[in-house]
Amino acid sequence: MARTGRRPGNQDTREAILAAAREAFAERGYDGASIRQIATSAGVDPALVHHYFGAKDQLFLATMEAPINPGEILPKIFEPGLDGVGERLVRTFVGVWDSPTGTTVAALVRSAMQHEWSARMLREFLVTQILRRATRTLNLDPAEAPKRASLVASQMIGLAMIRYILKLEPLASMTEDEIVRNVAPTIQRYLAEPLPEA
Amino acid sequence: MARTGRRPGNQDTREAILAAAREAFAERGYDGASIRQIATSAGVDPALVHHYFGAKDQLFLATMEAPINPGEILPKIFEPGLDGVGERLVRTFVGVWDSPTGTTVAALVRSAMQHEWSARMLREFLVTQILRRATRTLNLDPAEAPKRASLVASQMIGLAMIRYILKLEPLASMTEDEIVRNVAPTIQRYLAEPLPEA
Repeated sequence: MARTGRRPGNQDTREAILAAAREAFAERGYDGASIRQIATSAGVDPALVHHYFGAKDQLFLATMEAPINPGEILPKIFEPGLDGVGERLVRTFVGVWDSPTGTTVAALVRSAMQHEWSARMLREFLVTQILRRATRTLNLDPAEAPKRASLVASQMIGLAMIRYILKLEPLASMTEDEIVRNVAPTIQRYLAEPLPEA
Repeated sequence: MARTGRRPGNQDTREAILAAAREAFAERGYDGASIRQIATSAGVDPALVHHYFGAKDQLFLATMEAPINPGEILPKIFEPGLDGVGERLVRTFVGVWDSPTGTTVAALVRSAMQHEWSARMLREFLVTQILRRATRTLNLDPAEAPKRASLVASQMIGLAMIRYILKLEPLASMTEDEIVRNVAPTIQRYLAEPLPEA
């Protein structure tokens, strides 16, 4: 990581805030954690938390060392609407995973397999940073959105595992286009088609 | 595990064979490993390997401590043919995972995330114990079967991760029937419908 020009004292403050935030998010979840309480735990003024990290979602991404910013990539996937959303979602995620960033994503997923703390953070991330944006931007029925999102997550996390961690062929070396052709219809169905009734 | 009536000396022989087999399968893969060579490494007669473990696939399952025997459950899924195969596959796997056996399956998947050795064994298991049976029993085009199988694996492993490891709701507490309704069409498409062309 590039060294910043910050003095060591400020670096310590940042670390103290991050440590307090990790504990707060893991214990109380994203919604239950507050900047004010995190600031108190870290022994700093809430304004300093905002100064270093911005809003709560940015602080949350920083504690996860999230390699992507959902606020940047998700609007491109969801804003054009339900038409073609499966293709945009699969293409974007495979693009990120195939980039150098993918290694960090794989590390996050691996960690979530091992530690309940990481699993909880990943759940919170999926629900608060991805599902909520999808629900709002795509105008999903809030009663159905969590079901749709967990189905999408099952296919996308499984795709990442098979391609990048288990490296099962031929999926491990399929082109992005071929993955999109095969998997996008699944995501499209989970997000946009009527959910099957009993 | 229940103690058998075997004398300790025999238990040592079994362990020596298993250790030699683990090494052989990990180094040479399922096809490259031979009972004869495993017997030599373990310093025993090949007949003794057959006596303790049966055929090579049984020995392989023993080295993985596989909690299920594909030779028992897969015929029920594949023998009735492509019609309804998605539903049978999803229902059977969710049934196994929801049973006490599921904990062992989750441990296998977790381990494959962490260790290249376990990942290789899981790949070999998927390809030699599941994919080959599916290809043969369902009469899949051998040129397409590995692609279909890795797509199926991506959805099924992701489903296991979301439901049992990440425990993301509502998928974590969905009924078996509801999972079947939602996910079986995906598996059906990956196995039985024409693969999308460029």
